[in-house]
Amino acid sequence: MLETVLSPALFPLHQSAIETKNVVVIDILRATSTICEALHQGAKEIITTTSPEEALGYRSKGFLCAAERDGITVPGFELGNAPQDYTSELVRGRSIALTTTNGTRCLRMSTGAHQVFAGSFLNISTLASYLIQNKKPVLLFCAGWKDRFNLEDTFFAGALAALLKDTFSADCDATLAAIHLWETNKDRAADFLHQASHAQRFRHLQRESDVDVCLRRDTAPVLPLFKDGVIRNHIETPSLHIG
Amino acid sequence: MLETVLSPALFPLHQSAIETKNVVVIDILRATSTICEALHQGAKEIITTTSPEEALGYRSKGFLCAAERDGITVPGFELGNAPQDYTSELVRGRSIALTTTNGTRCLRMSTGAHQVFAGSFLNISTLASYLIQNKKPVLLFCAGWKDRFNLEDTFFAGALAALLKDTFSADCDATLAAIHLWETNKDRAADFLHQASHAQRFRHLQRESDVDVCLRRDTAPVLPLFKDGVIRNHIETPSLHIG
Repeated sequence: MLETVLSPALFPLHQSAIETKNVVVIDILRATSTICEALHQGAKEIITTTSPEEALGYRSKGFLCAAERDGITVPGFELGNAPQDYTSELVRGRSIALTTTNGTRCLRMSTGAHQVFAGSFLNISTLASYLIQNKKPVLLFCAGWKDRFNLEDTFFAGALAALLKDTFSADCDATLAAIHLWETNKDRAADFLHQASHAQRFRHLQRESDVDVCLRRDTAPVLPLFKDGVIRNHIETPSLHIG
Repeated sequence: MLETVLSPALFPLHQSAIETKNVVVIDILRATSTICEALHQGAKEIITTTSPEEALGYRSKGFLCAAERDGITVPGFELGNAPQDYTSELVRGRSIALTTTNGTRCLRMSTGAHQVFAGSFLNISTLASYLIQNKKPVLLFCAGWKDRFNLEDTFFAGALAALLKDTFSADCDATLAAIHLWETNKDRAADFLHQASHAQRFRHLQRESDVDVCLRRDTAPVLPLFKDGVIRNHIETPSLHIG
Protein backbone atom coordinates (compact mmCIF):
# COMPACT_ATOMS: atom_id res chain seq x y z
CA MET A 1 0.00 0.00 0.00
CA LEU A 2 1.21 3.44 -0.96
CA GLU A 3 -0.71 6.54 0.18
CA THR A 4 -0.06 10.26 -0.18
CA VAL A 5 -1.12 12.96 2.27
CA LEU A 6 -1.27 16.34 0.50
CA SER A 7 -1.40 18.49 3.65
CA PRO A 8 -0.93 18.07 7.42
CA ALA A 9 -4.65 18.91 7.77
CA LEU A 10 -5.42 15.64 5.93
CA PHE A 11 -3.02 13.51 8.00
CA PRO A 12 -5.68 12.34 10.50
CA LEU A 13 -7.45 10.49 7.64
CA HIS A 14 -4.36 8.31 7.21
CA GLN A 15 -3.49 7.58 10.82
CA SER A 16 -5.22 4.24 11.10
CA ALA A 17 -2.66 1.44 11.53
CA ILE A 18 0.05 4.11 11.49
CA GLU A 19 2.26 1.80 13.58
CA THR A 20 2.56 -0.50 10.54
CA LYS A 21 3.60 2.26 8.11
CA ASN A 22 6.86 3.82 7.00
CA VAL A 23 6.17 7.57 6.81
CA VAL A 24 8.23 9.83 4.54
CA VAL A 25 7.98 13.49 5.53
CA ILE A 26 8.42 15.78 2.53
CA ASP A 27 9.30 19.45 2.84
CA ILE A 28 11.34 20.01 -0.28
CA LEU A 29 11.73 23.78 0.18
CA ARG A 30 13.64 23.27 2.37
CA ALA A 31 13.54 21.39 5.71
CA THR A 32 13.89 17.81 4.50
CA SER A 33 16.42 18.78 1.80
CA THR A 34 18.44 20.54 4.51
CA ILE A 35 18.23 17.57 6.89
CA CYS A 36 19.59 15.28 4.14
CA GLU A 37 22.43 17.68 3.33
CA ALA A 38 23.36 18.17 7.00
CA LEU A 39 23.65 14.40 7.60
CA HIS A 40 25.52 13.94 4.32
CA GLN A 41 28.03 16.60 5.38
CA GLY A 42 28.64 14.64 8.55
CA ALA A 43 26.32 16.13 11.17
CA LYS A 44 25.98 13.62 14.00
CA GLU A 45 22.29 14.23 14.72
CA ILE A 46 19.50 16.78 14.38
CA ILE A 47 17.10 17.51 17.21
CA THR A 48 13.80 19.03 16.08
CA THR A 49 12.24 21.61 18.34
CA THR A 50 8.86 23.34 18.39
CA SER A 51 10.14 26.89 18.79
CA PRO A 52 13.29 28.94 18.18
CA GLU A 53 13.48 29.50 21.96
CA GLU A 54 13.58 25.75 22.57
CA ALA A 55 16.29 25.35 19.89
CA LEU A 56 18.42 28.03 21.58
CA GLY A 57 18.19 26.08 24.82
CA TYR A 58 20.51 23.49 23.22
CA ARG A 59 23.33 25.98 22.63
CA SER A 60 24.78 25.51 26.10
CA LYS A 61 25.01 21.76 25.35
CA GLY A 62 27.27 22.46 22.37
CA PHE A 63 24.61 22.23 19.63
CA LEU A 64 24.56 24.34 16.50
CA CYS A 65 21.24 26.20 16.50
CA ALA A 66 19.14 26.46 13.32
CA ALA A 67 15.80 28.22 13.00
CA GLU A 68 13.65 29.36 10.10
CA ARG A 69 10.30 31.12 10.14
CA ASP A 70 8.48 32.20 6.99
CA GLY A 71 11.54 31.39 4.88
CA ILE A 72 14.03 33.52 6.84
CA THR A 73 16.81 32.60 9.31
CA VAL A 74 15.67 33.73 12.74
CA PRO A 75 18.06 36.46 14.06
CA GLY A 76 20.61 35.13 16.55
CA PHE A 77 20.89 31.68 14.94
CA GLU A 78 24.02 30.23 13.28
CA LEU A 79 21.97 28.47 10.63
CA GLY A 80 18.67 28.79 8.81
CA ASN A 81 17.08 26.30 6.48
CA ALA A 82 19.18 26.42 3.29
CA PRO A 83 21.04 23.17 2.41
CA GLN A 84 24.08 24.99 1.03
CA ASP A 85 24.76 26.62 4.41
CA TYR A 86 25.34 23.22 6.02
CA THR A 87 28.98 22.80 5.00
CA SER A 88 31.20 19.98 6.18
CA GLU A 89 33.47 22.49 7.95
CA LEU A 90 30.55 23.75 9.99
CA VAL A 91 28.52 20.62 10.76
CA ARG A 92 30.83 17.57 10.73
CA GLY A 93 30.44 15.66 14.02
CA ARG A 94 28.10 18.31 15.42
CA SER A 95 24.63 18.05 16.91
CA ILE A 96 22.11 20.52 15.50
CA ALA A 97 18.88 21.82 17.05
CA LEU A 98 16.48 22.74 14.22
CA THR A 99 13.04 24.33 13.99
CA THR A 100 11.26 25.22 10.73
CA THR A 101 7.81 26.46 9.66
CA ASN A 102 6.39 23.19 8.33
CA GLY A 103 8.68 20.21 8.03
CA THR A 104 9.81 19.65 11.62
CA ARG A 105 6.18 19.81 12.76
CA CYS A 106 5.24 16.97 10.40
CA LEU A 107 8.06 14.78 11.71
CA ARG A 108 6.63 15.14 15.20
CA MET A 109 3.07 14.51 13.96
CA SER A 110 4.28 11.17 12.57
CA THR A 111 5.37 9.85 15.96
CA GLY A 112 3.87 6.40 16.40
CA ALA A 113 4.58 5.25 12.85
CA HIS A 114 6.69 2.14 12.22
CA GLN A 115 9.54 4.39 11.04
CA VAL A 116 9.67 8.06 10.03
CA PHE A 117 12.09 9.33 7.38
CA ALA A 118 12.91 12.70 5.83
CA GLY A 119 12.73 12.59 2.03
CA SER A 120 14.02 14.91 -0.67
CA PHE A 121 15.47 14.76 -4.17
CA LEU A 122 18.90 14.72 -2.50
CA ASN A 123 18.29 11.19 -1.13
CA ILE A 124 15.44 9.89 -3.32
CA SER A 125 17.11 6.70 -4.63
CA THR A 126 18.52 5.70 -1.24
CA LEU A 127 15.10 6.18 0.30
CA ALA A 128 13.26 4.31 -2.45
CA SER A 129 15.66 1.35 -2.20
CA TYR A 130 15.17 1.15 1.54
CA LEU A 131 11.37 1.36 1.37
CA ILE A 132 11.24 -1.35 -1.29
CA GLN A 133 13.48 -3.63 0.77
CA ASN A 134 11.63 -2.90 4.01
CA LYS A 135 8.23 -3.77 2.44
CA LYS A 136 6.05 -1.93 5.00
CA PRO A 137 3.10 0.17 3.72
CA VAL A 138 4.35 3.64 2.77
CA LEU A 139 2.74 6.98 3.60
CA LEU A 140 4.13 10.00 1.73
CA PHE A 141 3.44 13.00 3.94
CA CYS A 142 3.64 16.39 2.21
CA ALA A 143 4.30 19.20 4.67
CA GLY A 144 2.73 21.88 2.44
CA TRP A 145 2.71 25.48 3.64
CA LYS A 146 0.81 26.23 6.82
CA ASP A 147 -1.61 23.37 6.13
CA ARG A 148 -2.10 24.34 2.47
CA PHE A 149 -1.35 22.08 -0.46
CA ASN A 150 1.86 22.99 -2.24
CA LEU A 151 3.24 22.09 -5.63
CA GLU A 152 6.82 21.15 -4.79
CA ASP A 153 6.07 18.60 -2.06
CA THR A 154 3.40 16.91 -4.19
CA PHE A 155 5.79 16.93 -7.16
CA PHE A 156 8.41 15.10 -5.09
CA ALA A 157 5.80 12.69 -3.69
CA GLY A 158 5.06 11.86 -7.33
CA ALA A 159 8.74 11.31 -8.10
CA LEU A 160 9.14 8.93 -5.17
CA ALA A 161 5.80 7.20 -5.84
CA ALA A 162 6.91 6.60 -9.44
CA LEU A 163 9.88 4.62 -8.07
CA LEU A 164 7.65 2.66 -5.68
CA LYS A 165 4.53 2.01 -7.74
CA ASP A 166 5.66 -1.32 -9.20
CA THR A 167 6.22 -2.68 -5.69
CA PHE A 168 3.32 -1.10 -3.79
CA SER A 169 -0.33 -0.71 -4.84
CA ALA A 170 -1.26 2.98 -5.12
CA ASP A 171 -5.03 2.90 -4.71
CA CYS A 172 -5.25 6.56 -3.76
CA ASP A 173 -6.20 9.53 -5.96
CA ALA A 174 -3.65 11.81 -4.30
CA THR A 175 -0.87 9.41 -5.32
CA LEU A 176 -2.22 9.20 -8.88
CA ALA A 177 -2.32 13.01 -9.14
CA ALA A 178 1.19 13.34 -7.70
CA ILE A 179 2.61 10.76 -10.12
CA HIS A 180 0.90 12.59 -12.97
CA LEU A 181 2.38 15.96 -11.94
CA TRP A 182 5.82 14.35 -11.79
CA GLU A 183 5.61 12.35 -15.02
CA THR A 184 4.41 15.31 -17.07
CA ASN A 185 6.95 17.80 -15.68
CA LYS A 186 10.06 15.82 -14.77
CA ASP A 187 11.96 17.10 -17.79
CA ARG A 188 11.24 20.71 -16.85
CA ALA A 189 11.25 20.43 -13.07
CA ALA A 190 12.87 23.78 -12.32
CA ASP A 191 10.54 25.68 -14.67
CA PHE A 192 7.52 23.90 -13.23
CA LEU A 193 8.42 24.60 -9.61
CA HIS A 194 9.43 28.20 -10.20
CA GLN A 195 5.72 28.95 -10.74
CA ALA A 196 4.88 27.54 -7.29
CA SER A 197 3.88 30.06 -4.66
CA HIS A 198 6.78 29.01 -2.44
CA ALA A 199 9.34 29.61 -5.19
CA GLN A 200 7.79 33.03 -5.71
CA ARG A 201 8.19 33.64 -1.98
CA PHE A 202 11.90 32.80 -2.41
CA ARG A 203 12.11 35.30 -5.26
CA HIS A 204 10.98 37.99 -2.86
CA LEU A 205 13.59 36.79 -0.35
CA GLN A 206 16.27 36.61 -3.11
CA ARG A 207 16.72 32.89 -2.42
CA GLU A 208 15.56 31.69 -5.83
CA SER A 209 18.64 29.50 -6.35
CA ASP A 210 17.53 27.39 -3.37
CA VAL A 211 14.92 25.78 -5.64
CA ASP A 212 17.65 24.48 -7.95
CA VAL A 213 19.77 23.17 -5.05
CA CYS A 214 16.76 21.27 -3.70
CA LEU A 215 16.12 19.64 -7.09
CA ARG A 216 19.56 17.97 -7.29
CA ARG A 217 19.06 14.25 -7.32
CA ASP A 218 20.99 11.81 -5.11
CA THR A 219 23.62 14.31 -3.98
CA ALA A 220 23.07 13.30 -0.32
CA PRO A 221 22.54 9.50 -0.25
CA VAL A 222 21.51 9.31 3.39
CA LEU A 223 18.56 7.78 5.21
CA PRO A 224 17.43 10.30 7.86
CA LEU A 225 15.44 8.37 10.48
CA PHE A 226 13.43 10.39 13.00
CA LYS A 227 13.19 8.63 16.36
CA ASP A 228 12.46 10.00 19.82
CA GLY A 229 12.75 13.57 18.52
CA VAL A 230 16.19 13.02 16.96
CA ILE A 231 17.16 12.50 13.31
CA ARG A 232 20.17 10.30 12.56
CA ASN A 233 21.45 8.61 9.43
CA HIS A 234 20.01 5.09 9.38
CA ILE A 235 22.16 3.61 6.63
CA GLU A 236 22.47 -0.03 7.68
CA THR A 237 24.28 -1.57 4.77
CA PRO A 238 26.57 -0.06 2.11
CA SER A 239 24.33 -1.52 -0.62
CA LEU A 240 21.64 1.00 0.27
CA HIS A 241 23.84 3.73 -1.19
CA ILE A 242 23.14 2.33 -4.62
CA GLY A 243 19.82 3.74 -5.92
CA MET B 1 -8.64 36.14 -6.81
CA LEU B 2 -9.22 32.51 -7.65
CA GLU B 3 -8.61 29.82 -5.02
CA THR B 4 -9.13 26.05 -5.00
CA VAL B 5 -9.95 23.93 -1.95
CA LEU B 6 -8.98 20.31 -2.57
CA SER B 7 -10.93 18.80 0.34
CA PRO B 8 -13.57 19.89 2.87
CA ALA B 9 -10.91 19.37 5.57
CA LEU B 10 -8.97 22.28 4.01
CA PHE B 11 -11.99 24.61 3.74
CA PRO B 12 -11.33 26.40 7.07
CA LEU B 13 -8.07 27.79 5.59
CA HIS B 14 -10.11 29.64 2.97
CA GLN B 15 -12.94 30.98 5.08
CA SER B 16 -11.52 34.44 5.72
CA ALA B 17 -13.66 37.07 3.95
CA ILE B 18 -15.94 34.27 2.77
CA GLU B 19 -18.80 36.78 2.59
CA THR B 20 -17.04 38.43 -0.37
CA LYS B 21 -16.57 35.21 -2.35
CA ASN B 22 -18.55 33.25 -4.90
CA VAL B 23 -18.15 29.61 -3.92
CA VAL B 24 -18.53 26.83 -6.49
CA VAL B 25 -19.17 23.45 -4.90
CA ILE B 26 -17.84 20.61 -7.04
CA ASP B 27 -18.96 17.00 -6.64
CA ILE B 28 -18.69 15.73 -10.19
CA LEU B 29 -19.51 12.09 -9.35
CA ARG B 30 -22.34 12.89 -8.94
CA ALA B 31 -24.18 15.35 -6.64
CA THR B 32 -23.50 18.60 -8.48
CA SER B 33 -23.91 16.98 -11.90
CA THR B 34 -27.26 15.63 -10.73
CA ILE B 35 -28.36 19.01 -9.33
CA CYS B 36 -27.62 20.65 -12.70
CA GLU B 37 -29.51 17.96 -14.60
CA ALA B 38 -32.52 18.10 -12.25
CA LEU B 39 -32.88 21.88 -12.68
CA HIS B 40 -32.31 21.60 -16.43
CA GLN B 41 -35.10 19.01 -16.64
CA GLY B 42 -37.41 21.49 -14.94
CA ALA B 43 -37.27 20.69 -11.23
CA LYS B 44 -38.56 23.70 -9.32
CA GLU B 45 -36.12 23.47 -6.40
CA ILE B 46 -33.86 21.09 -4.49
CA ILE B 47 -33.74 21.06 -0.70
CA THR B 48 -30.54 19.58 0.73
CA THR B 49 -30.85 17.57 3.92
CA THR B 50 -28.33 16.12 6.34
CA SER B 51 -29.80 12.63 6.54
CA PRO B 52 -32.04 10.29 4.53
CA GLU B 53 -34.53 10.44 7.44
CA GLU B 54 -34.75 14.22 7.14
CA ALA B 55 -35.24 13.94 3.36
CA LEU B 56 -38.10 11.48 3.85
CA GLY B 57 -39.79 14.01 6.12
CA TYR B 58 -40.47 16.10 2.98
CA ARG B 59 -42.49 13.36 1.27
CA SER B 60 -45.72 14.37 2.99
CA LYS B 61 -45.23 17.88 1.55
CA GLY B 62 -45.24 16.49 -1.99
CA PHE B 63 -41.47 16.37 -2.51
CA LEU B 64 -39.63 13.73 -4.50
CA CYS B 65 -37.11 12.14 -2.13
CA ALA B 66 -33.55 11.42 -3.24
CA ALA B 67 -30.82 9.85 -1.13
CA GLU B 68 -27.45 8.34 -1.84
CA ARG B 69 -24.94 6.85 0.58
CA ASP B 70 -21.64 5.33 -0.52
CA GLY B 71 -22.72 5.52 -4.16
CA ILE B 72 -26.01 3.62 -3.77
CA THR B 73 -29.65 4.80 -3.75
CA VAL B 74 -30.92 4.40 -0.19
CA PRO B 75 -33.78 1.82 -0.10
CA GLY B 76 -37.23 3.43 0.00
CA PHE B 77 -36.24 6.50 -2.09
CA GLU B 78 -37.60 7.39 -5.54
CA LEU B 79 -34.28 8.77 -6.66
CA GLY B 80 -30.58 8.35 -5.99
CA ASN B 81 -27.74 10.43 -7.27
CA ALA B 82 -27.49 9.58 -11.01
CA PRO B 83 -28.18 12.48 -13.42
CA GLN B 84 -29.86 10.24 -16.00
CA ASP B 85 -32.55 9.23 -13.48
CA TYR B 86 -33.80 12.83 -13.25
CA THR B 87 -36.03 12.80 -16.33
CA SER B 88 -38.31 15.64 -17.31
CA GLU B 89 -41.35 13.35 -16.84
CA LEU B 90 -40.36 12.70 -13.26
CA VAL B 91 -39.03 16.04 -12.03
CA ARG B 92 -40.66 18.87 -14.03
CA GLY B 93 -42.22 21.37 -11.64
CA ARG B 94 -41.38 19.21 -8.64
CA SER B 95 -39.54 19.98 -5.43
CA ILE B 96 -36.84 17.46 -4.50
CA ALA B 97 -35.32 16.67 -1.10
CA LEU B 98 -31.75 15.42 -1.64
CA THR B 99 -29.02 14.04 0.58
CA THR B 100 -25.67 12.68 -0.68
CA THR B 101 -22.38 11.51 0.83
CA ASN B 102 -20.23 14.55 0.07
CA GLY B 103 -21.69 17.29 -2.12
CA THR B 104 -24.71 18.42 -0.15
CA ARG B 105 -22.56 18.70 2.97
CA CYS B 106 -20.18 21.12 1.19
CA LEU B 107 -23.08 23.32 0.07
CA ARG B 108 -24.10 23.73 3.69
CA MET B 109 -20.49 24.34 4.79
CA SER B 110 -20.39 27.28 2.35
CA THR B 111 -23.24 29.12 4.04
CA GLY B 112 -22.12 32.69 4.65
CA ALA B 113 -20.42 33.11 1.26
CA HIS B 114 -21.50 35.89 -1.10
CA GLN B 115 -23.18 33.27 -3.32
CA VAL B 116 -22.91 29.47 -3.49
CA PHE B 117 -23.29 27.59 -6.77
CA ALA B 118 -23.21 23.95 -7.81
CA GLY B 119 -20.73 23.35 -10.64
CA SER B 120 -20.26 20.49 -13.08
CA PHE B 121 -19.25 19.88 -16.69
CA LEU B 122 -22.98 19.99 -17.50
CA ASN B 123 -23.10 23.75 -16.73
CA ILE B 124 -19.44 24.82 -16.93
CA SER B 125 -19.76 27.57 -19.57
CA THR B 126 -22.87 29.09 -18.00
CA LEU B 127 -21.14 29.16 -14.64
CA ALA B 128 -17.88 30.60 -16.00
CA SER B 129 -19.75 33.38 -17.83
CA TYR B 130 -21.64 34.32 -14.69
CA LEU B 131 -18.54 34.32 -12.44
CA ILE B 132 -16.64 36.49 -14.93
CA GLN B 133 -19.51 38.98 -15.15
CA ASN B 134 -20.06 38.97 -11.38
CA LYS B 135 -16.37 39.75 -10.68
CA LYS B 136 -16.34 38.56 -7.03
CA PRO B 137 -13.38 36.46 -5.83
CA VAL B 138 -13.98 32.81 -6.66
CA LEU B 139 -13.44 29.81 -4.41
CA LEU B 140 -13.59 26.40 -6.12
CA PHE B 141 -14.58 23.92 -3.44
CA CYS B 142 -13.90 20.25 -4.26
CA ALA B 143 -16.11 17.91 -2.24
CA GLY B 144 -13.69 14.98 -2.47
CA TRP B 145 -14.62 11.68 -0.88
CA LYS B 146 -15.10 11.67 2.89
CA ASP B 147 -12.58 14.51 3.29
CA ARG B 148 -10.04 12.90 0.96
CA PHE B 149 -8.70 14.50 -2.19
CA ASN B 150 -10.21 13.08 -5.36
CA LEU B 151 -9.17 13.21 -8.96
CA GLU B 152 -12.47 14.08 -10.67
CA ASP B 153 -13.36 17.14 -8.60
CA THR B 154 -9.85 18.56 -8.93
CA PHE B 155 -9.93 17.83 -12.66
CA PHE B 156 -13.15 19.83 -13.03
CA ALA B 157 -11.79 22.64 -10.82
CA GLY B 158 -8.93 22.82 -13.31
CA ALA B 159 -11.33 22.97 -16.27
CA LEU B 160 -13.28 25.83 -14.69
CA ALA B 161 -10.12 27.62 -13.51
CA ALA B 162 -8.76 27.44 -17.07
CA LEU B 163 -11.83 29.46 -18.20
CA LEU B 164 -11.38 31.98 -15.36
CA LYS B 165 -7.62 32.42 -15.17
CA ASP B 166 -7.41 35.33 -17.62
CA THR B 167 -9.91 37.29 -15.50
CA PHE B 168 -8.87 36.30 -11.98
CA SER B 169 -5.38 35.95 -10.48
CA ALA B 170 -4.70 32.35 -9.43
CA ASP B 171 -1.95 32.73 -6.83
CA CYS B 172 -2.61 29.33 -5.28
CA ASP B 173 -0.71 26.09 -5.84
CA ALA B 174 -3.89 24.01 -5.68
CA THR B 175 -5.31 25.99 -8.62
CA LEU B 176 -2.05 25.60 -10.58
CA ALA B 177 -2.06 21.83 -9.99
CA ALA B 178 -5.74 21.55 -10.95
CA ILE B 179 -5.22 23.52 -14.19
CA HIS B 180 -2.24 21.31 -14.99
CA LEU B 181 -4.27 18.10 -14.45
CA TRP B 182 -6.97 19.49 -16.75
CA GLU B 183 -4.70 20.84 -19.49
CA THR B 184 -2.68 17.64 -19.77
CA ASN B 185 -5.70 15.30 -19.77
CA LYS B 186 -8.59 17.19 -21.35
CA ASP B 187 -8.33 15.25 -24.61
CA ARG B 188 -8.56 11.94 -22.73
CA ALA B 189 -10.85 12.93 -19.87
CA ALA B 190 -12.79 9.68 -19.67
CA ASP B 191 -9.66 7.53 -19.70
CA PHE B 192 -8.03 9.74 -17.08
CA LEU B 193 -11.00 9.67 -14.72
CA HIS B 194 -11.67 5.96 -15.11
CA GLN B 195 -8.46 5.35 -13.11
CA ALA B 196 -9.81 7.45 -10.21
CA SER B 197 -10.78 5.55 -7.09
CA HIS B 198 -14.37 6.80 -7.36
CA ALA B 199 -14.76 5.52 -10.92
CA GLN B 200 -13.43 2.18 -9.73
CA ARG B 201 -16.05 2.25 -6.99
CA PHE B 202 -18.66 2.74 -9.74
CA ARG B 203 -17.26 -0.26 -11.57
CA HIS B 204 -17.98 -2.38 -8.52
CA LEU B 205 -21.50 -0.90 -8.43
CA GLN B 206 -21.93 -1.42 -12.21
CA ARG B 207 -22.47 2.33 -12.66
CA GLU B 208 -19.40 2.93 -14.79
CA SER B 209 -21.35 4.80 -17.49
CA ASP B 210 -22.17 7.51 -14.93
CA VAL B 211 -18.63 8.82 -15.39
CA ASP B 212 -19.29 9.49 -19.08
CA VAL B 213 -22.65 11.17 -18.39
CA CYS B 214 -20.98 13.47 -15.87
CA LEU B 215 -18.30 14.49 -18.41
CA ARG B 216 -20.79 15.86 -20.98
CA ARG B 217 -20.13 19.53 -21.39
CA ASP B 218 -22.84 22.22 -21.33
CA THR B 219 -25.76 19.80 -21.59
CA ALA B 220 -27.51 21.52 -18.64
CA PRO B 221 -26.89 25.30 -18.97
CA VAL B 222 -28.29 26.23 -15.57
CA LEU B 223 -26.97 28.28 -12.66
CA PRO B 224 -27.84 26.35 -9.47
CA LEU B 225 -27.76 28.88 -6.61
CA PHE B 226 -27.84 27.52 -3.06
CA LYS B 227 -29.56 29.89 -0.65
CA ASP B 228 -31.20 29.22 2.71
CA GLY B 229 -30.87 25.47 2.22
CA VAL B 230 -32.59 25.50 -1.19
CA ILE B 231 -31.09 25.25 -4.70
CA ARG B 232 -32.90 27.06 -7.51
CA ASN B 233 -31.88 28.05 -11.03
CA HIS B 234 -30.50 31.59 -10.87
CA ILE B 235 -30.40 32.35 -14.58
CA GLU B 236 -31.03 36.09 -14.70
CA THR B 237 -30.61 36.91 -18.39
CA PRO B 238 -30.86 34.74 -21.50
CA SER B 239 -27.34 35.81 -22.50
CA LEU B 240 -25.95 33.72 -19.66
CA HIS B 241 -26.92 30.60 -21.58
CA ILE B 242 -24.18 31.38 -24.06
CA GLY B 243 -20.85 30.08 -22.72
